[in-house]
Amino acid sequence: MKKSLGADALGVPAPVWVVGSYGPDREPNVMVASWGGICCSSPPCLAVSLRKTRLSHANIMKSKAFTVNVPSRRHLPVTDYIGTVSGRSQNKFAATGLTPVPSSLVEAPYILEFPLVLECTLFTSIDLGSHTQFIGRVVDVKADEAMLDGAGALIAGKVNPLIASPAERAYYALGNYLTPAHAPGLAVLEHRAARQGKGW
Amino acid sequence: MKKSLGADALGVPAPVWVVGSYGPDREPNVMVASWGGICCSSPPCLAVSLRKTRLSHANIMKSKAFTVNVPSRRHLPVTDYIGTVSGRSQNKFAATGLTPVPSSLVEAPYILEFPLVLECTLFTSIDLGSHTQFIGRVVDVKADEAMLDGAGALIAGKVNPLIASPAERAYYALGNYLTPAHAPGLAVLEHRAARQGKGW
Repeated sequence: MKKSLGADALGVPAPVWVVGSYGPDREPNVMVASWGGICCSSPPCLAVSLRKTRLSHANIMKSKAFTVNVPSRRHLPVTDYIGTVSGRSQNKFAATGLTPVPSSLVEAPYILEFPLVLECTLFTSIDLGSHTQFIGRVVDVKADEAMLDGAGALIAGKVNPLIASPAERAYYALGNYLTPAHAPGLAVLEHRAARQGKGW
Repeated sequence: MKKSLGADALGVPAPVWVVGSYGPDREPNVMVASWGGICCSSPPCLAVSLRKTRLSHANIMKSKAFTVNVPSRRHLPVTDYIGTVSGRSQNKFAATGLTPVPSSLVEAPYILEFPLVLECTLFTSIDLGSHTQFIGRVVDVKADEAMLDGAGALIAGKVNPLIASPAERAYYALGNYLTPAHAPGLAVLEHRAARQGKGW
């Protein structure tokens, strides 16, 4: 028997993304967002939702571009700081000492010190109520070399990203690597096929 | 110096969601999706993107409702199995022994055995290319009592959800609880205020 928690108990784990954009006069700004995710493979797109009152909201509407910067666990204090103050009252790059790098591909800055960056142009935006969902077309993904394995693939355990728990208003770490996809499922299939003496 | 990985290297951690829907004749079906996230607070909405070829895509277009079922780590084999076969060839509930519960709020089934369920009506859908993004208005969130703390709040560490690493095509576990939001950031602020001898 499940307990009803109401519609607002959005207790699913969420990403911790730092969204980069340019303000008026091309001043770089960053904010923290957790309402987001990948939303399309072809073209590669991600979605991130921002409240309409946010400075970054106006910035992205104007420049039609943004970056998603993924902090590692060691960036938790600076990331939380970015999520605690407004770019209207603080130049967050100056305050944190983080380095804004002008993207050569999109009209937005990214964070030099963070290990993983997705550069996006604005594909479309949707007014949903409290939040506008910005769908970004991913133009490039950039990562520090130390985040890659020998074959050049991005390893989540090396990025070591933060995970948000919205219901607790708290941060979690990423845990251990478990298994490749489609391995445990195939094992279940094989077990059943063997037990039943026939293939599926 | 960051390395460019190309636009398709969507290597951000992603949720592992099992989407429930009714097929023709109200047959319950489930599929695994990782392209998704929360997208609005008011009204509470989530987004999940499905390929147009999927049975669940047609189901949701027709019934205008779906559920998001969040598996715990112990559900990894059955979840991976659900992600490995199509509802066109298998009744996945019959094959897995999972129990479909008809939602009393939306026209979709949820999974009895999974610890956390979000029941959604279709708010809007957007054709993005390979995928259609379904935005669901969350009508209720239901959880097993064991997922809650004494105050009735949902604890991610108790749900113990899986995290997908799309670049690796692999599953990770959720890691440890780290800190409440706005605590490390405030500490940074206080440290700076003390060092600079003035408030911000």
